[in-house]
Amino acid sequence: MAPKVGDELPDSTLYEGSPGGAVKIRELFAGKKGVIVGVPGAFTPTCSKTHLPSYISNFDKLKEAGADVVVTVSVNDPFVMEAWGESLGVGDKVRMLADTRCEFTKAVDLSFDATPFLGNERSQRYAMLVVDNVIKAVNVEASPGEATCSLADPVVELLKAM
Amino acid sequence: MAPKVGDELPDSTLYEGSPGGAVKIRELFAGKKGVIVGVPGAFTPTCSKTHLPSYISNFDKLKEAGADVVVTVSVNDPFVMEAWGESLGVGDKVRMLADTRCEFTKAVDLSFDATPFLGNERSQRYAMLVVDNVIKAVNVEASPGEATCSLADPVVELLKAM
Repeated sequence: MAPKVGDELPDSTLYEGSPGGAVKIRELFAGKKGVIVGVPGAFTPTCSKTHLPSYISNFDKLKEAGADVVVTVSVNDPFVMEAWGESLGVGDKVRMLADTRCEFTKAVDLSFDATPFLGNERSQRYAMLVVDNVIKAVNVEASPGEATCSLADPVVELLKAM
Repeated sequence: MAPKVGDELPDSTLYEGSPGGAVKIRELFAGKKGVIVGVPGAFTPTCSKTHLPSYISNFDKLKEAGADVVVTVSVNDPFVMEAWGESLGVGDKVRMLADTRCEFTKAVDLSFDATPFLGNERSQRYAMLVVDNVIKAVNVEASPGEATCSLADPVVELLKAM
């Protein structure tokens, strides 16, 4: 399950910083090109050691390829997301957005039941390319533990082709 | 709401470390005296700057007063709990236990609805004194944002009197 290419982004609110200021995802991508990186969990190994670092280290390539904005979305609270961003040294490169109540993730049909290990519904691992609030591509990993098609390199190529 | 003094600890499983080994709370407190420190959220300001640090800096006093074991319980996943413990430098003083699915917290009747800000049910802020799996005292804060009766100092006094 995933949103269809051509769908508009939902009118969802995410949260950033401590105690978590509201960020309307459609305001962020209005007239902009960028990437939404969905991850299952802050501080989990694949997200922290492979997935997010690929976007931090390739940030300049993403900008050159046309990305105005790069955000990470995870179903964690904003306090955890901020701490995770600091631990990864995201600086002002990748915005760490908390989908506190799993509302955005469900709206784009990318949640999965992670109750046994993480306690609740979480986000699948994906990279979503968005141009002016329209979804142009979605690379969803076959399982949340994998990080291949959602890494920064294939996303740079997709951005270049757009 | 809170458990009654004299109640037995529930037969709950918590999770510790990454990816989260099972810890049976009754095995931890069998024949032992100690403290369970309940907190609303890893990386939240009161928990990180006031509450947990009081247990780390007063750890020797807690041991001298008779505590064999000091644990923190929060409704976060074990990856977040481990990262939080590392950021606070808990070392081997305070064990960071994830109540991933809010099972222990509900079993001791100390959950509250934190959906608006943290996304799910969380733990109230409390300190619970336990001797050989029997609850001997529970200091619950009037609101989760406060940290007074559940700090280490009053708990040291309670331990001495036991």
